[in-house]
Amino acid sequence: MGRSKLPVDLLVRGGTVVAVDADDTVVRADVAVADGRIAGIGRDLDVEPEVVLDATDAAVVPGFVNAHMHETLDRGVFEDLPFVEWLEEYALPKDMAYEPRHMRAAAMLNQAEMIAGGTTSFIDIFRHPHEVAAVAERSGLRATISPQIVDTPAGAGETVADAVGFVEHWHRRIPGRIRAWFGPHALYSCTPETYRCIRELTCVYDVGIHTHLAESRAEAGMIAEQSGGLSPVRWLDELVGLGSDVVAAHCVELSDDDLALLVERGVGIAHCPTSNAKLGNGIARIPEMLAAGAVVGLGTDSNMTNNDLDMFEEMRLAALVQKQRTGDPTVLPSGQVLRMATMGSARVLGVDHRVGSIEVGKAADLAVVDLRGAHARPIVRHGRTNIVEQLVWACSARDVRHTVVDGRVLMQDRQLLTLDVEEVVELADREIVDLLRSAGVLEKRFGPAT
Amino acid sequence: MGRSKLPVDLLVRGGTVVAVDADDTVVRADVAVADGRIAGIGRDLDVEPEVVLDATDAAVVPGFVNAHMHETLDRGVFEDLPFVEWLEEYALPKDMAYEPRHMRAAAMLNQAEMIAGGTTSFIDIFRHPHEVAAVAERSGLRATISPQIVDTPAGAGETVADAVGFVEHWHRRIPGRIRAWFGPHALYSCTPETYRCIRELTCVYDVGIHTHLAESRAEAGMIAEQSGGLSPVRWLDELVGLGSDVVAAHCVELSDDDLALLVERGVGIAHCPTSNAKLGNGIARIPEMLAAGAVVGLGTDSNMTNNDLDMFEEMRLAALVQKQRTGDPTVLPSGQVLRMATMGSARVLGVDHRVGSIEVGKAADLAVVDLRGAHARPIVRHGRTNIVEQLVWACSARDVRHTVVDGRVLMQDRQLLTLDVEEVVELADREIVDLLRSAGVLEKRFGPAT
Repeated sequence: MGRSKLPVDLLVRGGTVVAVDADDTVVRADVAVADGRIAGIGRDLDVEPEVVLDATDAAVVPGFVNAHMHETLDRGVFEDLPFVEWLEEYALPKDMAYEPRHMRAAAMLNQAEMIAGGTTSFIDIFRHPHEVAAVAERSGLRATISPQIVDTPAGAGETVADAVGFVEHWHRRIPGRIRAWFGPHALYSCTPETYRCIRELTCVYDVGIHTHLAESRAEAGMIAEQSGGLSPVRWLDELVGLGSDVVAAHCVELSDDDLALLVERGVGIAHCPTSNAKLGNGIARIPEMLAAGAVVGLGTDSNMTNNDLDMFEEMRLAALVQKQRTGDPTVLPSGQVLRMATMGSARVLGVDHRVGSIEVGKAADLAVVDLRGAHARPIVRHGRTNIVEQLVWACSARDVRHTVVDGRVLMQDRQLLTLDVEEVVELADREIVDLLRSAGVLEKRFGPAT
Repeated sequence: MGRSKLPVDLLVRGGTVVAVDADDTVVRADVAVADGRIAGIGRDLDVEPEVVLDATDAAVVPGFVNAHMHETLDRGVFEDLPFVEWLEEYALPKDMAYEPRHMRAAAMLNQAEMIAGGTTSFIDIFRHPHEVAAVAERSGLRATISPQIVDTPAGAGETVADAVGFVEHWHRRIPGRIRAWFGPHALYSCTPETYRCIRELTCVYDVGIHTHLAESRAEAGMIAEQSGGLSPVRWLDELVGLGSDVVAAHCVELSDDDLALLVERGVGIAHCPTSNAKLGNGIARIPEMLAAGAVVGLGTDSNMTNNDLDMFEEMRLAALVQKQRTGDPTVLPSGQVLRMATMGSARVLGVDHRVGSIEVGKAADLAVVDLRGAHARPIVRHGRTNIVEQLVWACSARDVRHTVVDGRVLMQDRQLLTLDVEEVVELADREIVDLLRSAGVLEKRFGPAT
């Protein structure tokens, strides 16, 4: 009398599961998915899958969670310029010129890149959020979208009213997958009244706040002047009451007292090492933050200050800059870095009950990472393996073979299934020229048409 | 009366040539190759090619030149250990345990990775050079191989006699492609007599010296003690007479006087930003060196301190750490970084007459880099394009589509043609376990077999 096999939607077969669970499990196992959730993890699951993803010679990891980014079109367009020239002559006019069509192209470009790199969740902050949400609806990514609110006259952003409209429309539309938050840009670009008003609104709608915080010494100086001597962290606490529903990007300039407050309140800290380095803003004290019990995740920031959305590169640089800063090779070990890019970021976004690790019952948000290339070897097959070390130090976004969100396959064998990469790049190439032309900076930057 | 087409061996068709020549030419053009050399660059070359490589939606760049590396097997094996434990308990025993079979596996692994990443030339320094040369003979890469000479009893290296035997055997065997040099490890690991003796030998054989120099503050301290107060640069000059046939890896700890001497003598400086960061050795003053007229190239160092041989990542980090160090976003602009990884490194190795740029008459050492992915876009098609920025900041080794050395195709459409990647990774996985077991560190590091 044969027992019938359990029908499941998806089986990820033949890989090594790097679970990022409490036990740091690394085990050869298949992963079965039913109704969007992980239904089983094991070697001989008695299941009848509808779809099989081959994970031979690959690692199956929790999909990466990008804890801070902007979806922009400007990658590689304004490099190597002096800061003031960049800001005043290019960045601000260009940000002001963004129309929905440019934003749609930006969202397509960024989301295609994230899927291709094994990122399954992101939180962004930028313009025209309806366009971003519409692309996320199509792409299948798990998105927290924060309309960027800027008060300064030269700044480019959405109004509080726009943001309310967006939150009203989206925040319960695709529960668990697309969330609408508020994105006051920063303490130096929004008024105290705006922050206070936004805090009231987040209570009304039960959503979070995504903001830049303590990114640079210049910011700390400005805020001290504005607030009568407070640090950015203390000032933000005065304005909104810090809590676990706040995602604070950067947090480079923290006193021990600031850090203690962030820990006490469970504020989500989004560490963006590449952006901090590229902008010369110093190095956040991540090992100290983790030791203090802070909630720390990893973000790429925008493709303008990174310049890619590769969470592997971000992991590698996160480890590298701390070893460099401290001179201590033992800080931020590989396992801790991988955790920061998955469970850490999930905690930052307050979604760690749902994603960030591979455990039965959690959403099936997975990245299958090819380990076949010479660059990812050797793999020691004896006792504890070194797969985590290879993932953090040697792999890249381009090694991702399949990407799955909520059990839905968004990329299989490096083919995007929800977005058409040819359409994406054609749109991006066309719209960047249109955007630069609209902003009046095309010929200034790239010279006359050839 | 029709003119007959010129028969050529190879045509790289439809790409954008980033020539890295004196004019920084970036132009849509085909590249024709005859007898291993670049025979023509243009849009409508009147040629009849034997083989065509498709470069549509791709950049055609000079093959990268890795100016300092060791071919080792240890990637991702000894991460996150305290320095002394790492050195004494793992690194030294393991280096001593290297047998030719391990070195063969290491050379296969490293050379496969370099080909896959568009590197066409490298200079290494490590053990069992005959194995490395034999693999290079097969792989088709352009190699300068420096047997690592170490005098200290705990050090692992070849003897001067071994090195002489190697140079005798190889230095004129495959002219222009495989060169045999001398690799005294460092001023703290070789005696003054060894350096002096090697300098006499390099004059006899007309070959160069590849050594580590001024890598860390600790080294500078040791040398000052040993030499009666000299800097590593001055002490090396005393011992060997610095010249353009010396490749000095790292050069982090340089006084202005040291730098002036390196410039005056045309010494090749191999900058290894990832390794310097990972080992916490500080940041070399590259913009200052370039401004002073130094010969500077880019190297990955070994897969133990990097952990990959991806020259794109090395370019990105080179730019990043200088912007971070100086707080000036204009330093090391993208074009200069690309030049450092190609022509710069070629000058370091003294082979810039032959490789490092795409110019008629030079050897056809080329990498064709795919720009189809969302991560490499947008590309501005108006006036000056932004392809160089995308290459430096957004592309990776895994975007390389074809690799060519001396007109011979070593990789086509990501398929290695001279090495079998399955054989390479199987060998690497097997030999790393054997090496660790021979060194007596396998179970200490990875626990009992599972």
